[in-house]
Amino acid sequence: MRASPADLAEQVRAGSHQAAARLISLLEDGDPEGLAALRALPPEREAYTVGITGPPGAGKSTLVDALTRLVRAEGATVGIIAVDPTSPFTGGALLGDRIRMQEHSTDPGVFVRSMATRGHLGGLAPATIDAARVLAALGVDLVLVETVGAGQAEVDVVTAADTVVVVAVPGMGDALQTLKAGIMEIGDVFAVNKADRPDADRTVVELRMMLHLAPQEGWRPPVVRTVATMGEGVAELLAAVRQHRAHLEASEALEARRRRRRRQAVLRALEARVQEAVLARARHDPVVAAVLEEAERGVLDARAAADRLLQHLERAGR
Amino acid sequence: MRASPADLAEQVRAGSHQAAARLISLLEDGDPEGLAALRALPPEREAYTVGITGPPGAGKSTLVDALTRLVRAEGATVGIIAVDPTSPFTGGALLGDRIRMQEHSTDPGVFVRSMATRGHLGGLAPATIDAARVLAALGVDLVLVETVGAGQAEVDVVTAADTVVVVAVPGMGDALQTLKAGIMEIGDVFAVNKADRPDADRTVVELRMMLHLAPQEGWRPPVVRTVATMGEGVAELLAAVRQHRAHLEASEALEARRRRRRRQAVLRALEARVQEAVLARARHDPVVAAVLEEAERGVLDARAAADRLLQHLERAGR
Repeated sequence: MRASPADLAEQVRAGSHQAAARLISLLEDGDPEGLAALRALPPEREAYTVGITGPPGAGKSTLVDALTRLVRAEGATVGIIAVDPTSPFTGGALLGDRIRMQEHSTDPGVFVRSMATRGHLGGLAPATIDAARVLAALGVDLVLVETVGAGQAEVDVVTAADTVVVVAVPGMGDALQTLKAGIMEIGDVFAVNKADRPDADRTVVELRMMLHLAPQEGWRPPVVRTVATMGEGVAELLAAVRQHRAHLEASEALEARRRRRRRQAVLRALEARVQEAVLARARHDPVVAAVLEEAERGVLDARAAADRLLQHLERAGR
Repeated sequence: MRASPADLAEQVRAGSHQAAARLISLLEDGDPEGLAALRALPPEREAYTVGITGPPGAGKSTLVDALTRLVRAEGATVGIIAVDPTSPFTGGALLGDRIRMQEHSTDPGVFVRSMATRGHLGGLAPATIDAARVLAALGVDLVLVETVGAGQAEVDVVTAADTVVVVAVPGMGDALQTLKAGIMEIGDVFAVNKADRPDADRTVVELRMMLHLAPQEGWRPPVVRTVATMGEGVAELLAAVRQHRAHLEASEALEARRRRRRRQAVLRALEARVQEAVLARARHDPVVAAVLEEAERGVLDARAAADRLLQHLERAGR
């Protein structure tokens, strides 16, 4: 028997990891009962969210694990959301998730969840924000959002975080890749991981030089050296994240960031709703079907088709 | 003095690279005159589009250049659309574009254009489709769309192509990265580039094994070895792309693919229009402003806010 939305929300608030996992799955599927349960959660609680991104192979997962161990040692609880590109070949990158689950399975203070980058009609960022809300209700103190890639979807997700950590690795090539990936400008804190490599110094200097060219907004992103596999520099990284948090809270920028991401979430949800409405209507509304057909044949261009559909939907709303 | 839309369209049809570049810029900016010029282009012409993707460092640009030289040697013309993540630090990844422009600047048979991944309200894929239409009108025979990253935005772009080439590099780690990036399932043709490396054989075998697990739809994606810097295997790669084209044309799958991407373009354009409408209305419509404000404060969740906005827009359309 399925729990009612109110029961599910109550179970999450009581600290049930199983209930939280089920609720996040329902929300990913856009299930109405999931939405009802989300609305039954206390709205006032919001966990501090740290997004962690960088090129593949930079050691983001290891860094997230090291941060988790540190925060846990202090007694606080951690939620990890791993944003993984989905592959039908492997059934998603759930493998890493399962390995992690095992590592943290004996620790009720850590909740791990992977989210696929595909199949989110309303975009991945809102789904991540929903998941973070569930984790907050579960009682998690800190949410770490980790991305595998450095594409636009991943960038959208991490920019929805309160503090964004960009992980770079030594070597001019890698530094350039980071730069090319367009993620330089979104970092609040930079970690040069694998800093025991010989060319780490140069990468740190290069990053600092590039960051000097960037607009500051009262905050100069610090560059921290880490060797995640050895746990080196992780305490310094966590301290830098906390300094950034203090800066945001002192300048009221935290609330501004959160407002911006909530507005973005509304626009994404609206896009999803409009798309659903059009596709549902195409099945029985001859005007919608005809406009789509003309566009698919290439007779009508996409923007003109969109204009006609919007006008028609507005008229149909009468 | 600016050319009228009809004049601009005529200049593109007459083969002016400068006019094509201007038109693509206007379309990127969503300029109404650009749209008018796009509509004045002959709708019947559509260039065959090949998307080329893969992890950073796989040698995609070098492969695109090698393919271009080969196609040019046969006398056909080529358009290159390089999808580059934008960075405010570097002013976009236009550097590579400029270097290429110089290489091909003396050849009127090659048109090179980079497009940034940011700032496309309706998504990057429609912008790329528009650019491909402009290139077709310009008289280009083959369009190569190359992506820098392997994120969702880039995957969307290449899946809008007629044939998708996934470029891998030798080494189990790299092969796994390719897999993780979720681009295995979108490839029609696979190139193992840098195939002069010692572990190339293993990568080819691994790829073939993984492709055997994949659904076929009457086409088994071939795996081609290339050394792009030496021009090795490039003719075989081009032959594989042409076999895939012949397969699509024989099975009517080409038109199905194109219809699907045109439908996607309509939905993306519609999303953009709805978003514009909401943001424009927020300035003077107290209901829209209030719903956005409640959502930004976190009192109203994103989906509920989207529902209210959609209902209100439909009523307002009366």
